[in-house]
Amino acid sequence: MDQNSPLKSLDELYRKNSKEALKDYFTFLSFESVSSEPAYQPEMTRCVMWLKDYIEKIGLKCELWTTPGHPTLFASWMGAGPDKPTFLIYNHYDVQPVDPIGEWITPPFEPTIRDGQVYARGAQDNKGQCFYVLQALKMLFERDKCLPINIKLCIEGEEECGSHGLTDILDERQEQLKADYLAIVDLGMKSPNQPALTLGLRGITTMDVEFIGSNSDMHSGEHGGIAFNPIHALIQTLDKLRDSSGKIMVPGFYDDVTPLDPAELHQLATDFDHSEYKKTFAADPTGGEKEFSPLERGWTRPTLEINGITGGYSGKGFKTVIPAKASAKISCRLVPDQDPEVIAENVADFINENVPEGVKVQVTLHPGGGVPMRSSPASKVVKAFSQAFEEVYKVPCQYILAGGSIPVTAKLAQASKSEVVLFGLGLADDHIHAPNEHFGLDRLEKGALAMARGIELLGTI
Amino acid sequence: MDQNSPLKSLDELYRKNSKEALKDYFTFLSFESVSSEPAYQPEMTRCVMWLKDYIEKIGLKCELWTTPGHPTLFASWMGAGPDKPTFLIYNHYDVQPVDPIGEWITPPFEPTIRDGQVYARGAQDNKGQCFYVLQALKMLFERDKCLPINIKLCIEGEEECGSHGLTDILDERQEQLKADYLAIVDLGMKSPNQPALTLGLRGITTMDVEFIGSNSDMHSGEHGGIAFNPIHALIQTLDKLRDSSGKIMVPGFYDDVTPLDPAELHQLATDFDHSEYKKTFAADPTGGEKEFSPLERGWTRPTLEINGITGGYSGKGFKTVIPAKASAKISCRLVPDQDPEVIAENVADFINENVPEGVKVQVTLHPGGGVPMRSSPASKVVKAFSQAFEEVYKVPCQYILAGGSIPVTAKLAQASKSEVVLFGLGLADDHIHAPNEHFGLDRLEKGALAMARGIELLGTI
Repeated sequence: MDQNSPLKSLDELYRKNSKEALKDYFTFLSFESVSSEPAYQPEMTRCVMWLKDYIEKIGLKCELWTTPGHPTLFASWMGAGPDKPTFLIYNHYDVQPVDPIGEWITPPFEPTIRDGQVYARGAQDNKGQCFYVLQALKMLFERDKCLPINIKLCIEGEEECGSHGLTDILDERQEQLKADYLAIVDLGMKSPNQPALTLGLRGITTMDVEFIGSNSDMHSGEHGGIAFNPIHALIQTLDKLRDSSGKIMVPGFYDDVTPLDPAELHQLATDFDHSEYKKTFAADPTGGEKEFSPLERGWTRPTLEINGITGGYSGKGFKTVIPAKASAKISCRLVPDQDPEVIAENVADFINENVPEGVKVQVTLHPGGGVPMRSSPASKVVKAFSQAFEEVYKVPCQYILAGGSIPVTAKLAQASKSEVVLFGLGLADDHIHAPNEHFGLDRLEKGALAMARGIELLGTI
Repeated sequence: MDQNSPLKSLDELYRKNSKEALKDYFTFLSFESVSSEPAYQPEMTRCVMWLKDYIEKIGLKCELWTTPGHPTLFASWMGAGPDKPTFLIYNHYDVQPVDPIGEWITPPFEPTIRDGQVYARGAQDNKGQCFYVLQALKMLFERDKCLPINIKLCIEGEEECGSHGLTDILDERQEQLKADYLAIVDLGMKSPNQPALTLGLRGITTMDVEFIGSNSDMHSGEHGGIAFNPIHALIQTLDKLRDSSGKIMVPGFYDDVTPLDPAELHQLATDFDHSEYKKTFAADPTGGEKEFSPLERGWTRPTLEINGITGGYSGKGFKTVIPAKASAKISCRLVPDQDPEVIAENVADFINENVPEGVKVQVTLHPGGGVPMRSSPASKVVKAFSQAFEEVYKVPCQYILAGGSIPVTAKLAQASKSEVVLFGLGLADDHIHAPNEHFGLDRLEKGALAMARGIELLGTI
């Protein structure tokens, strides 16, 4: 480390604290904070109580905001005074379910280090990224006994299931959330040593679809050829949603898609390594609309994906059944200026209109969803973190888009009236939302340094 | 009961024994003899040991035939001597899995009577139908201290999972199985007071299909539009198997279908009550090929049914995943003269040829299968049981076909060199292979009487 580097003191502090920090990170990861499954409610509570205690010890004032769902943890330190900017940082303490559990090499809630990577559910998404934010604040307090700017943390417990609770209380919490800048620290970068800021997110809308045949499972001998198998109805109807070129056939689906400005596209790091993708995932990137490149499809085009399908017997052996029901879970990723509610209605209408005779369908649209969003490379907060990442990684920071959605982002930006920056140290092969999720110890460190440095830089502009 | 009726003495005996018989029937039903799931192995053994003991007490000599799968129970009483015919009766002691368990009103292995119906897994298929055969033999022995003809019983333990074990040993057991007549007592009738003999069964072939995308579940935000979702590949490929009129599109699928002779069709009870079907199953009979009537589709046309489908997340809530894999279980019901192996290969080839780029598929054909079969209304054993059922029900016995398959039937007929009759007292709404399977106490009684009477009649021709 260069003796004159602004990172030197932070780096030394990180090393001094790293052993204890790792222990705390592991504790954070050990809570089974799966927000989408009611059975995990007590673990959600244990997790947020631990986190509140942890953040209070760092030096921030904490409160738990009750929501119709899981609570949101709000923390603040306003000691920099009204002349300094206020920076709101968003993370989440909830995680995805762990199915298929049998494919985890080590248990999802028993963090394990292999080859410098921490394996656990949430190791990256988003406990790992939340944890380096906390380490950054801890280091700054330890070094300076204060922070260079005012800080607010908003750590929610329902990002993985739609952020309904936080969304619901945003209006009434506007005053507390008010900030100049907002960082959504739940994103990624394209390769391990190439930091990136994310200038856009896709929106999302989700639904459940159930096809109902008869009032009971039936014998496929007696009733085969007579009863309409709801699995066939499901397949027949859902297959109509896409043509063979990957285009979504729902009327109006693409009507509100605004193509990216060529100048804007030019600033983005649009290289895509096909062979690296294939090596990592053991599959060619052949999904989506064939007329677009893989990165265009992932960043600038909407999708319709079936995220789950079930019907009949899927255990060992065989059961010659015509099931009474078959169902699927569908999500659409959206780009500017698609509206989640309009798209959801269009998809539901299309499904309802394409059900074969003799079968009934029930489409359940999930409330909320997320609007797509973009931020500008000219914004102050984007510039500060671009510099911070460049200092830590010693390469220029890239600008990218993200295919994922953080539905609460646009709403939180609006409620807090702040300029948004989105970033994070996730990598495509971290296996988030999948078995064997992991996050690198090197990234935990770089994240803490960049976060602390970005906060310092925000204090100087 | 008419004092001169040949059924009088049997009827009196049935009533005398009925309370004890019901207790024994319930014991038989309480064994969790699910043959397709390895976990139930100990229950399979307990069930067949109990049955062996029960049949020995009736007066037959029993032996357990070891097979590569579950054992077959063989019993015989040859006391009528070589001048009398030998009658082989086939049943099975294994049952289907009980999923979805939550839909059972009372537990599947705790038999319960409601409105004269016994509810339990196997209540009809096939423990109920096996049990009235045993009651018939018990009554005849009790009344006459002997049987009018030689009897052999072949009660297998793998009918619900392909009869592989019994099939495997048929060659070496030919001498012991040798018989003049063979009854397959695992069938049904069209309405409660209308007995029927079944003159034909469909064949069957089954397979598992697995579509493989990447090497891990993926996040549908990051990878949506880039990765090819194997659920989409599954849907896209399987939807090609059928056109919108229900016709199977696999090349060669219908090549060997021999239409039923019009004269033969004329003897069959081909009435089909559409409104009764809809009332019973809460669905119109709109499955299969639109150009044929429901009964033609169920009796004389082959089918391709998806009996199970699974992929991604199907629990509560939502998981924005692109799964690594998606799979389905497929069966085809076959009619004369389709060959199970040829059809299976054709379907597998079609699937393999229609997989989209970037996705792999693994088709696993299940060995064995069953050839379709037909028997003649002119056969002696058909005539004897036609008369027996007419005496018991006091209406002429119908001739029908069955859409189901009992794969071992043709093979057992060949091994035993016997003339076949197929019958049973199943009804379409017994919910076999489904939750809340049931069988009527009235049918248990009529089955025992008809069986005993049929055996008497076989001794006089």
